[in-house]
Amino acid sequence: MNNERLYFSSDYMEGAHENIIKKLVETNLYHTVGYGLDEYSSSAKERIRKACKCENAEVELLVGGTQANSTVIDAVLRTYQGVVAAHTGHIAGHEAGAVEAFGHKVLTIPGKLGKIDAAGIKSYLKDFYNDDNHDHMVNPGMVYISMPTEYGTLYTLKELTAISEVCREYEIPLFLDGARLAYALASEENDVTLPDLAKLCDIFYIGGTKCGAFMGEAVVVPNPKLIPHFFTTIKQHGALFAKGRILGIQFDELFKDDLYLNIGKNAVKYAMRIKNALRENGYEIFIDTPTNQVFFVISNKEMKELAKKVEFGFWEKYDEDHTVIRFATSWATKEEDVERLLKVIKR
Amino acid sequence: MNNERLYFSSDYMEGAHENIIKKLVETNLYHTVGYGLDEYSSSAKERIRKACKCENAEVELLVGGTQANSTVIDAVLRTYQGVVAAHTGHIAGHEAGAVEAFGHKVLTIPGKLGKIDAAGIKSYLKDFYNDDNHDHMVNPGMVYISMPTEYGTLYTLKELTAISEVCREYEIPLFLDGARLAYALASEENDVTLPDLAKLCDIFYIGGTKCGAFMGEAVVVPNPKLIPHFFTTIKQHGALFAKGRILGIQFDELFKDDLYLNIGKNAVKYAMRIKNALRENGYEIFIDTPTNQVFFVISNKEMKELAKKVEFGFWEKYDEDHTVIRFATSWATKEEDVERLLKVIKR
Amino acid sequence: MNNERLYFSSDYMEGAHENIIKKLVETNLYHTVGYGLDEYSSSAKERIRKACKCENAEVELLVGGTQANSTVIDAVLRTYQGVVAAHTGHIAGHEAGAVEAFGHKVLTIPGKLGKIDAAGIKSYLKDFYNDDNHDHMVNPGMVYISMPTEYGTLYTLKELTAISEVCREYEIPLFLDGARLAYALASEENDVTLPDLAKLCDIFYIGGTKCGAFMGEAVVVPNPKLIPHFFTTIKQHGALFAKGRILGIQFDELFKDDLYLNIGKNAVKYAMRIKNALRENGYEIFIDTPTNQVFFVISNKEMKELAKKVEFGFWEKYDEDHTVIRFATSWATKEEDVERLLKVIKR
Amino acid sequence: MNNERLYFSSDYMEGAHENIIKKLVETNLYHTVGYGLDEYSSSAKERIRKACKCENAEVELLVGGTQANSTVIDAVLRTYQGVVAAHTGHIAGHEAGAVEAFGHKVLTIPGKLGKIDAAGIKSYLKDFYNDDNHDHMVNPGMVYISMPTEYGTLYTLKELTAISEVCREYEIPLFLDGARLAYALASEENDVTLPDLAKLCDIFYIGGTKCGAFMGEAVVVPNPKLIPHFFTTIKQHGALFAKGRILGIQFDELFKDDLYLNIGKNAVKYAMRIKNALRENGYEIFIDTPTNQVFFVISNKEMKELAKKVEFGFWEKYDEDHTVIRFATSWATKEEDVERLLKVIKR
Repeated sequence: MNNERLYFSSDYMEGAHENIIKKLVETNLYHTVGYGLDEYSSSAKERIRKACKCENAEVELLVGGTQANSTVIDAVLRTYQGVVAAHTGHIAGHEAGAVEAFGHKVLTIPGKLGKIDAAGIKSYLKDFYNDDNHDHMVNPGMVYISMPTEYGTLYTLKELTAISEVCREYEIPLFLDGARLAYALASEENDVTLPDLAKLCDIFYIGGTKCGAFMGEAVVVPNPKLIPHFFTTIKQHGALFAKGRILGIQFDELFKDDLYLNIGKNAVKYAMRIKNALRENGYEIFIDTPTNQVFFVISNKEMKELAKKVEFGFWEKYDEDHTVIRFATSWATKEEDVERLLKVIKR
Repeated sequence: MNNERLYFSSDYMEGAHENIIKKLVETNLYHTVGYGLDEYSSSAKERIRKACKCENAEVELLVGGTQANSTVIDAVLRTYQGVVAAHTGHIAGHEAGAVEAFGHKVLTIPGKLGKIDAAGIKSYLKDFYNDDNHDHMVNPGMVYISMPTEYGTLYTLKELTAISEVCREYEIPLFLDGARLAYALASEENDVTLPDLAKLCDIFYIGGTKCGAFMGEAVVVPNPKLIPHFFTTIKQHGALFAKGRILGIQFDELFKDDLYLNIGKNAVKYAMRIKNALRENGYEIFIDTPTNQVFFVISNKEMKELAKKVEFGFWEKYDEDHTVIRFATSWATKEEDVERLLKVIKR
Repeated sequence: MNNERLYFSSDYMEGAHENIIKKLVETNLYHTVGYGLDEYSSSAKERIRKACKCENAEVELLVGGTQANSTVIDAVLRTYQGVVAAHTGHIAGHEAGAVEAFGHKVLTIPGKLGKIDAAGIKSYLKDFYNDDNHDHMVNPGMVYISMPTEYGTLYTLKELTAISEVCREYEIPLFLDGARLAYALASEENDVTLPDLAKLCDIFYIGGTKCGAFMGEAVVVPNPKLIPHFFTTIKQHGALFAKGRILGIQFDELFKDDLYLNIGKNAVKYAMRIKNALRENGYEIFIDTPTNQVFFVISNKEMKELAKKVEFGFWEKYDEDHTVIRFATSWATKEEDVERLLKVIKR
Repeated sequence: MNNERLYFSSDYMEGAHENIIKKLVETNLYHTVGYGLDEYSSSAKERIRKACKCENAEVELLVGGTQANSTVIDAVLRTYQGVVAAHTGHIAGHEAGAVEAFGHKVLTIPGKLGKIDAAGIKSYLKDFYNDDNHDHMVNPGMVYISMPTEYGTLYTLKELTAISEVCREYEIPLFLDGARLAYALASEENDVTLPDLAKLCDIFYIGGTKCGAFMGEAVVVPNPKLIPHFFTTIKQHGALFAKGRILGIQFDELFKDDLYLNIGKNAVKYAMRIKNALRENGYEIFIDTPTNQVFFVISNKEMKELAKKVEFGFWEKYDEDHTVIRFATSWATKEEDVERLLKVIKR
């Protein structure tokens, strides 16, 4: 690490929130049983149930996003079923075939800025069941969306409700990947709450890895009957954590005093400030997102200069002379670093 | 946690070694890249290579044992191959079918106290290739052993060398599961070193979860050509850790100043003391092991009394009136607790 | 083919019953729809339902035994479940890991002469659910038996009823592999009928390949709700036959005028005659089976002589100087060949 | 079957070529060993090697197309690899996820009328290896094409050579699905021979099911080292045929006296005649294909009338009032039926 450099390449570059660190130190030599059956995990799960206003939910704490996605999808789908997702969905391209490794196809449909919509899903489902040969094809057995999406965009409550209604009409579980959920909950544009998710989704997870924890994703199943013997499937996926309390402590802290609801606020505020500054300096904003990721166009020449001072994410080639890059803020981003960044991007 | 109670049920009941805790706190807000490409992971891998006297080894840091086993086995085997293991091997019964979930069969052969031997493996391989129908059967494509075994027993250098020779004769990779390796390395009866493992095994892992870390298993591949694109297979298994440095820091500390070679010493010393005390008090030792697990026979009546004061592991029914139970010590076991335990078991 | 030689090595060495041949020739240029939706397949399924006295059964025609086993098992099991079978079960050793390839473990229990019994199954299930760690283990989700077994032995109606009762007590489907079922139905010792199978099993198949057809196994699911979307799973397994009528015609013929109930009779009669002759000539009968396979002990020297005139099956080494071999008769065995064999084995 | 009706819905509606029927009848009660080790299978394989001018090729006879595709793909790919295919490829949509069931992803790229081209494949591969995150993505491990394609179109020798060169540059095996290959070989527009396929492809299969056999696909591996232990993988996929000679006899006949090279000729000739007649009658030809499938646009009203007399294939909706339908001819199509059809479509 170089103290001079600025780090805006992603939201998993730092350790954990100080409350988590403190608690891990404090409890370090305590004895607990393993595999998530300890009191910290129980308390974390109970807090999550309360935050979701969903008393009967099953909550399972897993280590990471790809693991959560492939375990949940495999646990829900039957052998003849696949999962419907945006063609840009994380599971579709960036998880090394983890869904397929367990035997299931990702059925991609077109999306816009990372989002799919109720009409698109319905049209896909209708066409599928209208096709004379659908018995020869993978059945849509689940719908996968992410919030925020891979592009930092959000579903409104209305959009999410419409998707949920289509899924229920077709009796297909809706699964929401909330790897960056704290940044959605912290966005001023967001009107979706945790209790909304618990009502509208059949399964979702609350991201810890990118939202203040060392690692961890809390999978919530509002109606636990959806997944019998989930514990065993988790074990089978190599996703059962021996010292489960390490995950328990982290989520217990994240859900104490609404920490999780607030932990993304600075990140989003800083992202907005950066976006505005970019605009003011004449950069083209590539995707106008309301969360912690800022996508913009930069000339290759300027990019080279920028790279000397700042870590950022490469997104895609824009044209021969320009590139789309990404700044990501996080729960740990410091105001002083944002200010230094604003100076660097000044034209 | 009850401060009066004594905790000897397993070796994953506490947090992490104090050096690890310190370093995690110290580095918490540093920025690093993800996915194990950070400097702590690099340093940890380099230390492990040195400790194994194996400069070219590929080292990958995974989260847990079942995950490491299923990822390694799937990465090495071809579709028509299975893995040979003792019928008591952890992968054979206690990993919820994680090997099978990726399409591979566990080919069990008889073991003794958790161990299989060169003669048994050779006889299995010879019979297989002599069978006219072996083309209709799963090919043995790997041999799996654990050290210490699930029963706390150890392979001698001679035994391990003999197994390695059979594997090389048949060109079948040898994989050693070292989930509790620190307790083997700390045992007075042990004559196998890390460099021996790197010479005799084609792949093995050094356990962190049960040996002083919050979590983590360091997979060592002495000849990296054995597994092309291991990184992608790790990702596919949901086993790629986003904030890889958390694993890196832990193994970096464990391999600083030979900590890993010594971290199990007290645990083994205390286990021997407990075993001797049990013997002196007339308990039947069920398996006489040289590591951190003590298996003994107790009447059901006494067991009930014991359970009021001590947490222990249930192992198996011995007869109508007796049970085999296990005390496990760990790197975190305190001498005062051992002394309190000795008083409790006094007859 | 050598007309002088005698062929008793297995029961899949000839083509198909003459009725089948005739019908295939007769219908060859007729037009039908594909994938088993043709009228011959419908008629065959209806005849099978009637023969099983099970009006609502779903019947699916698959090509071969390994295919039927792996498709059925994968269709029934959930991801966290495995299939309980005798350690000698065909799926356990001789199907190249076809069950595991689809992600499921074969949970073997001890058998006797190919059979497992109600007590053994119950004891396995009880122990499983009593094990504190059973959530870490593959759940028994199905019981697999074969009739006749791989050793040619039969379950009595009483034995089968007892197994069925245990399965229903534990709500675990019972699956019977009837690859050689015609030879069971033709045995004088047999007291189990097709309607019994439909009552006692949750799924079973009626073998065609070894019982008079070119190929084909008719899978019967008495209560079709057990397997939703079976057609799609069959397709996914590569087990959906394009020109389904070829299977349809074969089973339609096999179930016309009770042909299937009688097609094994000569085979069994001849097998008994051969067994008696072997006994009279002082050979040791290795397994005394009531169906179309005869297992006996022969000195290696005699075996060498025998091999000059007769094709037989190698079963296993008996001792240094003796071997267990198998004669199998089939629906196509000719009396004159049996008589020639009797002369050859005369001592 | 209704003798008045006309059948042009597909090419797997009839039985088998008369030579095959004759030979099956003639050899019916002969004795042979099983699993494709018989003399008919050997002879068939030898004839295929000769027809392909590829002496060392491994030839395996499988039952059907989906089975051949999923077995070949699983046998070739490593766990971290997927198969590149046109988005319209049969494996991408119409095989119920058979590729994914064995753990592999289908990596779709845009195609035109069923075909992909060298430039498109190369661009995909280049982009993949240029992507910084490609280690997190499924590796392209194979390219799949079909000939004729699902749209009845053909690759020219030049196009195929170019694709082959890209594959060899990137060391990625090229796999050609020839389910309807006889209709390519019979087309006047075709300039690709079997020896060309053996030179340019790393693996391909010669379709029997749609080209004159009851069933069967002959998989050819010009360099057998590509797939070690293919036999065992075939068995594992439930694709090993017990009475292998039934497949052997069929391909032996198909490759006697160049039957396979000629068997599709009438079908293609009739398809051209039908296409011309459609044009003359003012129907819009939807895809102008040189093989045995004719795709054209018809008003829904006319379609309804047509359906009373002719079986055809539904292809897709064209607009509110029109539909694209398909006539398929086959090796068994009779001239008189073609003439009756021409009268029916007369406007």
